[in-house]
Amino acid sequence: MTRTATAAVRAAATSDATRVGVGILGATGYSGIELLRLLRQHPHADVLGVHSRQHGGETLSSVWPGVDTPLVLDGEALSPRDWRARGIEVVFAALPHGAFATEAEAFLQAGLRVVDLSSDFRLRDAGEYRRRYGTPHPAPHLLGDAAYGLAEWCEASPETARLVANPGCYATAILLAALPAVAAGTWSGAPIVANALSGVSGAGRGPSLKTHFVECGSSAAPYNVGEAHAHLGEIGQTLAMHGGGPVPAVVFNPHLVPMPRGILASLAIPLARRTSLEEAREIYTSRYAGKPFVNLMDGERLPETRHVLGSNRCDLALRVAAGGTMLLAFAAIDNLGKGAAGQAIQNWNRMQSWPDTTGLPRDGWTCA
Amino acid sequence: MTRTATAAVRAAATSDATRVGVGILGATGYSGIELLRLLRQHPHADVLGVHSRQHGGETLSSVWPGVDTPLVLDGEALSPRDWRARGIEVVFAALPHGAFATEAEAFLQAGLRVVDLSSDFRLRDAGEYRRRYGTPHPAPHLLGDAAYGLAEWCEASPETARLVANPGCYATAILLAALPAVAAGTWSGAPIVANALSGVSGAGRGPSLKTHFVECGSSAAPYNVGEAHAHLGEIGQTLAMHGGGPVPAVVFNPHLVPMPRGILASLAIPLARRTSLEEAREIYTSRYAGKPFVNLMDGERLPETRHVLGSNRCDLALRVAAGGTMLLAFAAIDNLGKGAAGQAIQNWNRMQSWPDTTGLPRDGWTCA
Amino acid sequence: MTRTATAAVRAAATSDATRVGVGILGATGYSGIELLRLLRQHPHADVLGVHSRQHGGETLSSVWPGVDTPLVLDGEALSPRDWRARGIEVVFAALPHGAFATEAEAFLQAGLRVVDLSSDFRLRDAGEYRRRYGTPHPAPHLLGDAAYGLAEWCEASPETARLVANPGCYATAILLAALPAVAAGTWSGAPIVANALSGVSGAGRGPSLKTHFVECGSSAAPYNVGEAHAHLGEIGQTLAMHGGGPVPAVVFNPHLVPMPRGILASLAIPLARRTSLEEAREIYTSRYAGKPFVNLMDGERLPETRHVLGSNRCDLALRVAAGGTMLLAFAAIDNLGKGAAGQAIQNWNRMQSWPDTTGLPRDGWTCA
Amino acid sequence: MTRTATAAVRAAATSDATRVGVGILGATGYSGIELLRLLRQHPHADVLGVHSRQHGGETLSSVWPGVDTPLVLDGEALSPRDWRARGIEVVFAALPHGAFATEAEAFLQAGLRVVDLSSDFRLRDAGEYRRRYGTPHPAPHLLGDAAYGLAEWCEASPETARLVANPGCYATAILLAALPAVAAGTWSGAPIVANALSGVSGAGRGPSLKTHFVECGSSAAPYNVGEAHAHLGEIGQTLAMHGGGPVPAVVFNPHLVPMPRGILASLAIPLARRTSLEEAREIYTSRYAGKPFVNLMDGERLPETRHVLGSNRCDLALRVAAGGTMLLAFAAIDNLGKGAAGQAIQNWNRMQSWPDTTGLPRDGWTCA
Repeated sequence: MTRTATAAVRAAATSDATRVGVGILGATGYSGIELLRLLRQHPHADVLGVHSRQHGGETLSSVWPGVDTPLVLDGEALSPRDWRARGIEVVFAALPHGAFATEAEAFLQAGLRVVDLSSDFRLRDAGEYRRRYGTPHPAPHLLGDAAYGLAEWCEASPETARLVANPGCYATAILLAALPAVAAGTWSGAPIVANALSGVSGAGRGPSLKTHFVECGSSAAPYNVGEAHAHLGEIGQTLAMHGGGPVPAVVFNPHLVPMPRGILASLAIPLARRTSLEEAREIYTSRYAGKPFVNLMDGERLPETRHVLGSNRCDLALRVAAGGTMLLAFAAIDNLGKGAAGQAIQNWNRMQSWPDTTGLPRDGWTCA
Repeated sequence: MTRTATAAVRAAATSDATRVGVGILGATGYSGIELLRLLRQHPHADVLGVHSRQHGGETLSSVWPGVDTPLVLDGEALSPRDWRARGIEVVFAALPHGAFATEAEAFLQAGLRVVDLSSDFRLRDAGEYRRRYGTPHPAPHLLGDAAYGLAEWCEASPETARLVANPGCYATAILLAALPAVAAGTWSGAPIVANALSGVSGAGRGPSLKTHFVECGSSAAPYNVGEAHAHLGEIGQTLAMHGGGPVPAVVFNPHLVPMPRGILASLAIPLARRTSLEEAREIYTSRYAGKPFVNLMDGERLPETRHVLGSNRCDLALRVAAGGTMLLAFAAIDNLGKGAAGQAIQNWNRMQSWPDTTGLPRDGWTCA
Repeated sequence: MTRTATAAVRAAATSDATRVGVGILGATGYSGIELLRLLRQHPHADVLGVHSRQHGGETLSSVWPGVDTPLVLDGEALSPRDWRARGIEVVFAALPHGAFATEAEAFLQAGLRVVDLSSDFRLRDAGEYRRRYGTPHPAPHLLGDAAYGLAEWCEASPETARLVANPGCYATAILLAALPAVAAGTWSGAPIVANALSGVSGAGRGPSLKTHFVECGSSAAPYNVGEAHAHLGEIGQTLAMHGGGPVPAVVFNPHLVPMPRGILASLAIPLARRTSLEEAREIYTSRYAGKPFVNLMDGERLPETRHVLGSNRCDLALRVAAGGTMLLAFAAIDNLGKGAAGQAIQNWNRMQSWPDTTGLPRDGWTCA
Repeated sequence: MTRTATAAVRAAATSDATRVGVGILGATGYSGIELLRLLRQHPHADVLGVHSRQHGGETLSSVWPGVDTPLVLDGEALSPRDWRARGIEVVFAALPHGAFATEAEAFLQAGLRVVDLSSDFRLRDAGEYRRRYGTPHPAPHLLGDAAYGLAEWCEASPETARLVANPGCYATAILLAALPAVAAGTWSGAPIVANALSGVSGAGRGPSLKTHFVECGSSAAPYNVGEAHAHLGEIGQTLAMHGGGPVPAVVFNPHLVPMPRGILASLAIPLARRTSLEEAREIYTSRYAGKPFVNLMDGERLPETRHVLGSNRCDLALRVAAGGTMLLAFAAIDNLGKGAAGQAIQNWNRMQSWPDTTGLPRDGWTCA
């Protein structure tokens, strides 16, 4: 960007013309606290309510001393109408999967708009939900109202959406890496092999043996491999929607690796015909032109998770192999950024008709 | 802070009335890149020059892909007059110790103001410099011009300073923890025992066996213990200045521990008379009243480095032991924040008569 | 050692003349599994029983897949008499503090000898136990029978001991570093300042927020500082026994740092008179002559935890400061080795009149 | 194993009947020091010579303080004939790739047998060597003499071998996971997709930015992806030899993840016909029957690198996906164990007609 453009963006981003009251459900989990951190830097957000099922009545700073705020957490007794009366217009729900669905209606009826970071409203089909999550959907009549918010691939504007389902972290990385090839018709239809590495914050804040430092701190561990991970539901639904046909086959092997944040997805996509790296890059370049948070890397460089931590950016690189019959796509995101809180705010920006970049960092942390 | 106050601070912080051109020497080291990251968020800074001895001619983003900027690095041939002509008014020098001192005069004569993050201008006495660093000072005539920038303890305003010597990371943590007791006359004069733990970025970016992941990644290692660490020069000089008498005795044991960033200092300060925790807290509370970046923690809480990462904050806690004859003070800072780039910008804010907090985060990163 | 001597040691260590049946209580915790790992390499041990309160009925390998054994875990219903009938003569108890004391008598009455790794039998005085642990001792009549097993400082032979109390991990590192100076009368009596860094396995295997990878994996955190840590009971008791007088004053600041294993203790010991480094080294050298697991390091070297991991060694280094009035002693041990399972086996070797080194590694792991 | 069998194995493993003098080239690198650590526990090895290009004349313990030995390192001037005269019969060469090939002949002519851990003698064809490593082979006339030592797949006995080429760490994990399916004719011939994660010791001990703690300590990074990694040479050569046909297609994406040791390989192998998990398991079970270091895991379990650290074991698990048309194989090894020093000793055991397991741990470290 030129210096003038940078200044203009900065000016726009910091204009104080509009302030909107927002609330956060599940503010003491990893996605919730990241939402708070980012919204405190957002030029149009006033965080007026924070909620925690475990810590109701405590100050948020007593749970997260690094965030200096007088906000007191609402607990179990939180009333959507009270939040609305307090000036809250938008709610970010960062509750565990299954916890928000039963309460969604009360929030919507109180006139609140919702960005839901859980998996509760990502699937359009209640049967698929039951297959993936093992229980019937608690509010199937709301599924049709929810917009799946993979921001770079939303055709319809979410300006009128009442309920946006924020994509899963793995799904975001895999879909951003696979969709241009699939939508362009270059995928052969043979199984895509998607391996992904996740930092431990992806497993949530509830203590468990799996996330104990001594058990996971120096080890790499696959889990829910093959076709077992629930994100395959939204991955398949979205690939099918963008041209992948009725039975998209994706083999997905997630792995836990010893880092606090970050997702690295490595995809092998069989191609319908021999394709050069230049052709493949052209497809991705044109598809992501004007998308500020997708960074198609040049030359020899490959994504590394450290460079996207703290940002809403997705770093993406391509290679071809097997004589041009296989496309390799590598994507890095911050699982709590573009994979959760960052994309949620990007979706909110779009609901408000603000630029996608409003209040969202493109730079990553350094030396984190 | 109230909502109104927050809004006012935010408005002030983002006012675009003044823009100052700044340059960074050593922009590809850890302190240099952190300076760039923070200055890009600063409402009054335009980073117009970046420099690297190793990477001259390359783009900064090719070295640090997480920072998206078209800036190209100046190399060996950098001319201070050219930087001045380009609109740069202030230079942040983040070069290795000894490298800036020989060039300082040229920068000052070109009319540039300087914040130096190295140890070159921290000591007032050239003899002490020689004792601590083993070589004669390259520019002793400039020592009198330099202001030691421990921001919370600078009596004179640095508004007219041409050259500010930014304190060392360990020195910052230890002095913030010790000075109130020393200045209040409660220290007995018996040796202060200061243990400190540093993240690996404190050892610099130059590859070495000491910083190899396999050598340091799961180990705790003391080094330069006792009276061997060079920071004892500035620590002693500052304690003496604030009432510690002519021969301050500090035993300082630094340790390298496996984390990227952060310093945790644990001090045991022998007291002149039996003192209660309440008395000690009162001394510190009144001394740091109105200092936005020093956070004296309440109650049972103790500082943890994770909560200050990415911020310019110092978290501080006190205990008394040995029947009230020993004060324990614990301080956590980000070695690249308050211990380097953050405090450098705080000093620059003060040189410009802006509030200390301008453009500087008080919140820490979460889940880093 | 010469080649002949090495061969002789190796031959002795692997002689199969004596085999003793042993059992492990709490075999699935970190100390328990380390006991099993080491005992499987011990030439005289046959592990005939393993027990877990949580995993009774499961195979041990299902809990710890890295250890390949058909052993099945006994659970709640474990009978000491059954273990005795099965050929078990010695029990290593690696249960949480407080859990073994109520059951100790049954094990002793069944004719089993016990090495207890918990803190239950370390203090001689039931009143001190209550002060340190907050509850009355469950079996005060057994306190007199227990031998405190700091192996290098046990005057009486434990050959007849029925119950050995294995020292705490912090206490082992601190006492090995402090005792020679204290016993030699060089300590002034002013408070010893002991800082220590522990790997996360020291916090146990029970999942908690404190040990969650995302909360502790990149952070340094002091806890229970000053005079709050329970190990000060056994530290004070042992210092007093070896000449430290009736009211030993130790300020102890433990810190959690992000590594799986290891303890690094850094002590500052005020001296009664000016002492040179050579004098101090002479005291330690003569005291630890013939102690195979204490390694007083030469020259410039300082202990690092990585070099003792997996071994039963304590690396120790000395410095003097403050004009010879302060002795600095640095000790590194493996908290699960010399700080727990290793020292427990060393105590068992002594109970059996085998050399201390039998079956115990002096080499550390490399690149762990 | 039964108790009797265990005792018999232990007795066999510790018999002192045969002692062989061995030497280690490159003893201060990560593979070299691991060789020393393991050989010091081996019942038939006397380590009589250690060598380091950088540290000649120093004691080994001054470089690796965790290993307590009086051995002094030979340097540049090492003479193979001197080593032979000193009683050394076997040399383990752990030099960087390319460094041993030019000296191999002198060692062989001095009557020494060699296990080479570098890649110098793994490929049979000098042309393939030039393609993979970019330079002509320095000693092509020796290529025919070298036996590729993937121990579980060596048909011919290496008892008469003078020169064994120890496989690469990635190649070992990938081949152990792929070969049973390939050799059984179940692979369709479409590209195998092999993703692998390596600990940082795999990048060697030479300091570099890539292995600096701050650059790699919290990040996941792919490198040399697709068809760029040199290990594809030995992978292809071995697959072809065991039935994979003339043009085996493997897409191999290695990733660096923040752990000191360990490799986790995740393979997707397209199948010639629909295959059930039971059929696939039967192929692997029968192929690896009687192979003590390959552990085909039962049921729901998947390999984790932590469980094989310090051992010579390969943990292996299988899944089928895509309607039975894709076999997923997951393998974990210690890159310095089965991937380097452990397998080298296993090869030496076979050269001496000792059981594969002699002196080699099957148990892994715990809590490393």
